[in-house]
Amino acid sequence: MVVSKEEIHKIIENYDPKKITIATVCSHSALQTFYGARQEGFKTLGIAIGSIPKFYDAFPKAKPDEFLVLNNYAEILDKADELIKKNVILIPNGSFVEYMGAEIFRDKLKIPTFGNRKVLSWESDRNKQREWLEGGGVRMPAVIKHPRDIKNPVIVKYFGAKGGRGFFVAKNKEEFYNKIGSTGQKFTMQEYVLGTRYYPQFFASPFKRDNAMQTKSGSVQLMSIDRRDETNIDEMYKMGTIEDMRKQGFVPSFVVTGNVPVVLRESLLPEIFDFAEKTCDKAKELFDGMIGPFCLEGVYTDQLKFYVFEISGRIVAGTNPFISGSPYSALTFDKQMSTGRRIAEEIRYAISINQLKEVIS
Amino acid sequence: MVVSKEEIHKIIENYDPKKITIATVCSHSALQTFYGARQEGFKTLGIAIGSIPKFYDAFPKAKPDEFLVLNNYAEILDKADELIKKNVILIPNGSFVEYMGAEIFRDKLKIPTFGNRKVLSWESDRNKQREWLEGGGVRMPAVIKHPRDIKNPVIVKYFGAKGGRGFFVAKNKEEFYNKIGSTGQKFTMQEYVLGTRYYPQFFASPFKRDNAMQTKSGSVQLMSIDRRDETNIDEMYKMGTIEDMRKQGFVPSFVVTGNVPVVLRESLLPEIFDFAEKTCDKAKELFDGMIGPFCLEGVYTDQLKFYVFEISGRIVAGTNPFISGSPYSALTFDKQMSTGRRIAEEIRYAISINQLKEVIS
Amino acid sequence: MVVSKEEIHKIIENYDPKKITIATVCSHSALQTFYGARQEGFKTLGIAIGSIPKFYDAFPKAKPDEFLVLNNYAEILDKADELIKKNVILIPNGSFVEYMGAEIFRDKLKIPTFGNRKVLSWESDRNKQREWLEGGGVRMPAVIKHPRDIKNPVIVKYFGAKGGRGFFVAKNKEEFYNKIGSTGQKFTMQEYVLGTRYYPQFFASPFKRDNAMQTKSGSVQLMSIDRRDETNIDEMYKMGTIEDMRKQGFVPSFVVTGNVPVVLRESLLPEIFDFAEKTCDKAKELFDGMIGPFCLEGVYTDQLKFYVFEISGRIVAGTNPFISGSPYSALTFDKQMSTGRRIAEEIRYAISINQLKEVIS
Repeated sequence: MVVSKEEIHKIIENYDPKKITIATVCSHSALQTFYGARQEGFKTLGIAIGSIPKFYDAFPKAKPDEFLVLNNYAEILDKADELIKKNVILIPNGSFVEYMGAEIFRDKLKIPTFGNRKVLSWESDRNKQREWLEGGGVRMPAVIKHPRDIKNPVIVKYFGAKGGRGFFVAKNKEEFYNKIGSTGQKFTMQEYVLGTRYYPQFFASPFKRDNAMQTKSGSVQLMSIDRRDETNIDEMYKMGTIEDMRKQGFVPSFVVTGNVPVVLRESLLPEIFDFAEKTCDKAKELFDGMIGPFCLEGVYTDQLKFYVFEISGRIVAGTNPFISGSPYSALTFDKQMSTGRRIAEEIRYAISINQLKEVIS
Repeated sequence: MVVSKEEIHKIIENYDPKKITIATVCSHSALQTFYGARQEGFKTLGIAIGSIPKFYDAFPKAKPDEFLVLNNYAEILDKADELIKKNVILIPNGSFVEYMGAEIFRDKLKIPTFGNRKVLSWESDRNKQREWLEGGGVRMPAVIKHPRDIKNPVIVKYFGAKGGRGFFVAKNKEEFYNKIGSTGQKFTMQEYVLGTRYYPQFFASPFKRDNAMQTKSGSVQLMSIDRRDETNIDEMYKMGTIEDMRKQGFVPSFVVTGNVPVVLRESLLPEIFDFAEKTCDKAKELFDGMIGPFCLEGVYTDQLKFYVFEISGRIVAGTNPFISGSPYSALTFDKQMSTGRRIAEEIRYAISINQLKEVIS
Repeated sequence: MVVSKEEIHKIIENYDPKKITIATVCSHSALQTFYGARQEGFKTLGIAIGSIPKFYDAFPKAKPDEFLVLNNYAEILDKADELIKKNVILIPNGSFVEYMGAEIFRDKLKIPTFGNRKVLSWESDRNKQREWLEGGGVRMPAVIKHPRDIKNPVIVKYFGAKGGRGFFVAKNKEEFYNKIGSTGQKFTMQEYVLGTRYYPQFFASPFKRDNAMQTKSGSVQLMSIDRRDETNIDEMYKMGTIEDMRKQGFVPSFVVTGNVPVVLRESLLPEIFDFAEKTCDKAKELFDGMIGPFCLEGVYTDQLKFYVFEISGRIVAGTNPFISGSPYSALTFDKQMSTGRRIAEEIRYAISINQLKEVIS
């Protein structure tokens, strides 16, 4: 059972809105989260495992006011009272959710958290993700149910594949059967959409913000766009073809190691904003709405159509090139605005109109 | 017949220089154009087809003061009087010119336009482009007149090819004959220069600006450099070799979907500035000069020689990563300067010295 | 014999700390060096060969106050007195060192220079570089002593190879023997680490700066991270496989033509900071310490391990995208801080605490 909103809202009724502390785990996009929170006037707390990360001394503007050092992530559950006493609002990020486990985060972590924790159920299950996005009208690559239906390139993902390993691509049916072998491992399969990858990062507000595009459930902004570096697929071609490398025992992988800033052709912006709006509207219908940052991860084909292969329902590391703002945020905000800062700004705004509950669960 | 400068100059004699409105179509590089015009104190007007693009609400700093909504681009011709009453100066961009048609833009659009509209004749015709650039001393890939002359890789472009499709590359004569097939389609052919692509964006002024390199005909600045994303060629290698993909019916294409910011090795700057100067000087000789933004699109080989394969004679979308300035513009201007803003700044400057006619045609 | 520190320190005893001039050769990273020096209040002098580079007029904020025009780099040696009279501190960069020759720079150039000139001996010799980095605990690709030991892909570098040519990669032993041919040229060989390239740029201070991570010998900061463009390897795949191209007489090369800004996955920062610290600590042990900018050039594998294949012991051109600061420097400094400016800031700081000798040799 998802931690109930009512329970969390009771907790924040006792919070002193002048003494809120923004907290997250010290990884992923934590630097911009702490820096942004401080820019918006909040206290900050970093959750670290084992010891305080030494390199934070080199980033004094992002170093949290305080650290909570734990032996493992599960210990956070025991620290709820202590954190609540400090008026903590947790900011979920990819590392935070992965390290704790999405279910534990969703069902056990009784600490006020920015955003709608129900999104965790919808993004972690591929079928529900498709119900959400495709159901809302967002274009996605087709699912291929059976190998006999392979007519075009496919991407095959083994069950339990994690962190960019356990995938393969096959140009056609023959290649599929060669690569799948006889291990009997379970897998899912999607059309492989040939094109160039873009990861536009949006911010959904439950409020009708006046510097945003209005949606049924609030409003939405485009914060920035990146492209992920994926090792070892990105540079494998320098060595030989993927087939050659595979023969020699090298398996192409898609492990993310960093991010490159990009911009999208301006005539394509209407479509991605439309997809963002549909994502927000359908989220409202399905689970009380998308709140805060999300990213539509997709591919532009040479027919200039965007196919979304995945959604992340919280801040992604692809926002890290934009700690001082992006070419898009420059057109929206009067200040240099990272996504990390935007989260803090949303909390600040919600407090100012006495609606903090709208953004916390 | 190109709209005569004299006719346009008569129109702007009646303009109130304190009430100029900067206008362009809502696509391509319009966001930075509107934002930049406002930064320089101008009113702005966006020309949109069908309806006001909803996503502009998310970019309030770039949202024009006013929209002119049309059913199609041809209608702009009927709106000349209305636009002239608003003291409009049009900013041509790639979408604007393509959607209207270069000839109609050049010969029929009797509305004051930034830059020299004669450039449209020189950049849209491959032979005239070569007369301009090679004639001026800019290095270009060699033209291959006949397939029997193919000794090195070539890029083949079918007549009427548009938007990144209708090209192919061939490593050698054999591959050329395989790929060209027997369709009898007409084509042109150039040496394929192997190297890394750079798209340096310059700004030519007819004035001897004091923060610019002086040319015979005025002065020139380097605003920024990008690299274009081209789908599907950019990521095709992840699937298999281009030959493999082709066998399966996939045709490599070079459709631009976005842009990545880059910088050039500093020791290479003298050459690209030299090419920019030659481009400006020859333009003066051939057609009264290059005025405003232009881009030399080329390739650096491993011999560190730059080959220009194309010129764009107006603002390119590759300036979009630099809405808050670039590593180069930071060395030239005291303000954050996009190319869009630079256009407005040039108009502002021309007004201040009572020479608006020099930059309008 | 390396120019003695004592001799240089005697020279700067006579320097007027209020009239320091920052000088370097007009190439590589000179624009940010001059701009940054001026931002920190120093006079600037550009050393140019033949004539003053015309394009500097387009970068007035980076144009040095004064030029010293020489016929060749060797002439700098004759200008020592003149430069010393102007209270010059030289900033070494890649072009400066390469054009003069590392040995002449190190042993003959009796002009006060920023940093520790002993580093030149340690980075120009592959064996000493390995003693320094591997000896300090930094992970490097394995050296392969004999072709019979090739089990995985290797990168082979001919003796005297320069500027990105004279390398080749081989997937296996067979390919190695095919490619090495029978020329009898001498070579060295390393494990080829498959992954994505990152070039993190650090700044080592001999002082315990309060916005830096402390090391045994002072402190260290992360300034920025780039990825190098390498022609023609980067875009060769668009033409055909590397094998195909080679058959046709094209040799893959790794000539640097520019740089793309990137960020690294945040969870990988502890490791690169750890490597930076180890680099500094070992430098202290071996040769009185690393002072100023350095870059650990490496590859992240899909096991998320960083392998450093080279170190540059001074400012690299990869800092050029970050003339107005980087996503990392934004977390460290209150001002927009390039590496060029950081050098000037270090000199300014050293003067303020009366310790200029600590950063000059």
